[in-house]
Amino acid sequence: MTNSEPTSRFLRACHRLPIDTTPVWLMRQAGRYMAEYRTLRAKHSMLEMITTPELAAEITLQPIEAFDLDAAIIFADILPPLIGMGLDLEFVPGKGPVIHNPISSAEDIKRILTPPTEQILSPTLEAIKLVTQELEPRNIPLIGFAGAPFTLASYAIEGGGSKDYAKTKALMYSDPASWQLLMEKLVTVQADYLLAQAKAGAAALQVFDSWAGLALGQESYKRFVAPYNTSLFKMLRGASVPVINFSTGTTSYLEDVAACGGEVIGVDFRMPLGAAWGKIGFDRAIQGNLDPMTLLAPWSETQYHIDQVLDQAAGRPGHIFNLGHGLHKTTPVENVRRLVDYIHVQSSN
Amino acid sequence: MTNSEPTSRFLRACHRLPIDTTPVWLMRQAGRYMAEYRTLRAKHSMLEMITTPELAAEITLQPIEAFDLDAAIIFADILPPLIGMGLDLEFVPGKGPVIHNPISSAEDIKRILTPPTEQILSPTLEAIKLVTQELEPRNIPLIGFAGAPFTLASYAIEGGGSKDYAKTKALMYSDPASWQLLMEKLVTVQADYLLAQAKAGAAALQVFDSWAGLALGQESYKRFVAPYNTSLFKMLRGASVPVINFSTGTTSYLEDVAACGGEVIGVDFRMPLGAAWGKIGFDRAIQGNLDPMTLLAPWSETQYHIDQVLDQAAGRPGHIFNLGHGLHKTTPVENVRRLVDYIHVQSSN
Repeated sequence: MTNSEPTSRFLRACHRLPIDTTPVWLMRQAGRYMAEYRTLRAKHSMLEMITTPELAAEITLQPIEAFDLDAAIIFADILPPLIGMGLDLEFVPGKGPVIHNPISSAEDIKRILTPPTEQILSPTLEAIKLVTQELEPRNIPLIGFAGAPFTLASYAIEGGGSKDYAKTKALMYSDPASWQLLMEKLVTVQADYLLAQAKAGAAALQVFDSWAGLALGQESYKRFVAPYNTSLFKMLRGASVPVINFSTGTTSYLEDVAACGGEVIGVDFRMPLGAAWGKIGFDRAIQGNLDPMTLLAPWSETQYHIDQVLDQAAGRPGHIFNLGHGLHKTTPVENVRRLVDYIHVQSSN
Repeated sequence: MTNSEPTSRFLRACHRLPIDTTPVWLMRQAGRYMAEYRTLRAKHSMLEMITTPELAAEITLQPIEAFDLDAAIIFADILPPLIGMGLDLEFVPGKGPVIHNPISSAEDIKRILTPPTEQILSPTLEAIKLVTQELEPRNIPLIGFAGAPFTLASYAIEGGGSKDYAKTKALMYSDPASWQLLMEKLVTVQADYLLAQAKAGAAALQVFDSWAGLALGQESYKRFVAPYNTSLFKMLRGASVPVINFSTGTTSYLEDVAACGGEVIGVDFRMPLGAAWGKIGFDRAIQGNLDPMTLLAPWSETQYHIDQVLDQAAGRPGHIFNLGHGLHKTTPVENVRRLVDYIHVQSSN
C-alpha cells in the first residue's frame, strides 16, 4: 500500500483493509433522541439548523462527544438542494417536508435550475470545514451526503413524502424524455454538491436512494434509475474519497444497485447481511444493517440482533456496522452507547 | 379429476388446471377510479358502504358489469374486524383509518375481544350471499378476504397507517408474550371471519399481509409473523376453497412467506414474476404482478409491462394475472378495459 493508506477504522473498512475491530456509525446519529439536540431544536427551525454553519457543526459533533463512534456525518438534509433548483421547500412541524410548487409538467422540468453548490449550499460546506477542523486531529472521518436523483425527484413531483409515488411514476412512465431531463439536472446538481463536500473536507460520501426500491421493480429500476445513478457515481470518482451507495427496499435487485457504483454498498434491514453481501459480491465493502427498532427493546433482544449482523459479516474485511434505516427518535440514549461499545468489544481481534 | 373440478378460469388456475386463457382480476377493482363508485361514495361514508349489504353487493358488481373480469372480490375493508375486537375505528376522509384507542400495553392486549364473525361482521356475510346469487349463474367466482395478523396488529398498535412501524416493533421486540397473545387473538378472529365468508358463498379467500414485508427482515418475519400465518392458513383448510397468500415487500424471503401456506401466492411488483415463482416453487399457483402505476401511462408503455408479466409466466399452469398492488384512484377506466381484454387475447391458446 502507499503512504496514503488511511489509518481510521472507518476508512480502512471502506477500502477493505485489515482493522482492529468493526467500525460503527449510525444513520441519524445526530437527532431528536438526544437531549442536546432537542435543546437546540426547541430554539431553531430545521432550515435554520441546517443553514447556520455553527449550529450544523455543533449538532454533527453531539453524538461524537457522547459515544465512541468511528465516523461523523454532517448535519444536513437531502432536500435543500431542491430550493436552489427553484422549488419552494418548507419543513412543516409535525408533518414533514412540503414543496409548495411541485413539478407537474414537462414545462416545469424545463424551468428547473442547476446552479452551482457554492451559490446554493455554502452553509453546509462551511459546516463541513468547521467540523473537519475539530475531527481531523482526532482522526475521525466526516461523511458528506446527498440524495440520489430518484429520491429527490419523488419529493419534487409528489410535493412531499408519498405512499405510492403515483405522480412520480405516472410522469416517469408517460414522459420518459422529461424524466430523463429531470434526472440529468438532478445528477448535475448532486454531483457538484457531493464533490464540493469532499473538497470542503468530507472524507467519505453517502448517496441516499431512500425510495427507489420501495417505488420500483427491477425492470423499472434498470430503465429509469440505474443509468442516472451510474453517471452520478462515475462523476464522484473525481472526489477520490470512498462513496457509500445506500438504498432501501432494493433487496430483490441489489446486484443492479451495486452495479451503479460506490466503494461501499449500504443495505437495509430487510435481508440478512450475509445474503445481501453475496448478491453484491464480497469484493465490495458493505454497510449495515441492524433494524433500528431493535434498539427499543430490552438489551438482551437488541444484543441478539447485533450478534446476528456481526456473525453474518465475520471473517471478511470490509464491514461497517450501521443500522438498516435511521435511528428512531424514541431510542434510549443508553442503548446507543451500549450498542457502540458492544460492537467494538465483540468484534475486536 | 373428480366431478367437482371447477369450470371457471380463475378457480382452474388456482388449482393449476389447464385453461383457455389467463384469468385476470385486479386488487381494488371496485373503487374510486369508477364513476359509478364515486356516485355512491358521495352519498355514503366508507363504513356505511361496507356495512350495508345491498351497497357492498352493488359496488362489488360494478367492475364485473363494466369489464370482462374473471373474479369478483367482495367490497369490504381489512379493518372492521378490529371494531368487534374493541377498537374504536374511524375512516377519516382525506386521512385514512384512525383508531382512537390504540393498543399500547400488555393490559390492552388482554382486553382485546374475540367475538364470532356472525356477531360483528354479518353485513359482509350478507353482502357475499347477495353477490353469490348474482354471480353463480354466470360462473364468476367471488373472492372473500381478510387482513393477516401482523398487518392488523400494526394498525391496532400504531392507531392508523405508519411509515416505520416503530410502536408495533417496539412492542413485538420488547414483550414477545403479549405479542403472541395479540397475534393468537387475531388468528382466531380472522380464521373465523374467512371461514364464515367461504360458508356464505366465497369461492376463494385472499389474506392480505400488506405491511409485514415492509416492516420486517427475514429473521423477524420467521419469529414474529410466520408461526401465526401458518396456523391461520392451516385453519383455512377447513373452508375447502383455494386461499391466496398475498404480501408486499417480502421479495427477499418469499420462500418463507410461501411456506406459511396458501394454494396461490400473491406477489407485489418489486420482483420479476418468474424470479418470484422460482423462489415460491413452480408447484404452486402465483398471482400478480403488474405495477399499477403503469396503467397511468400511454397504452404502449402499459402493454410493454403487461407483456413482461405474461412472458415470465408463459408455459406454466397456475398464473392469475393481477396487479402488484391496488389499482390507483386516478387510473383511466379505459385502460382497465384494455388491460383485461388484452390479457385474454394475448394469452389465449
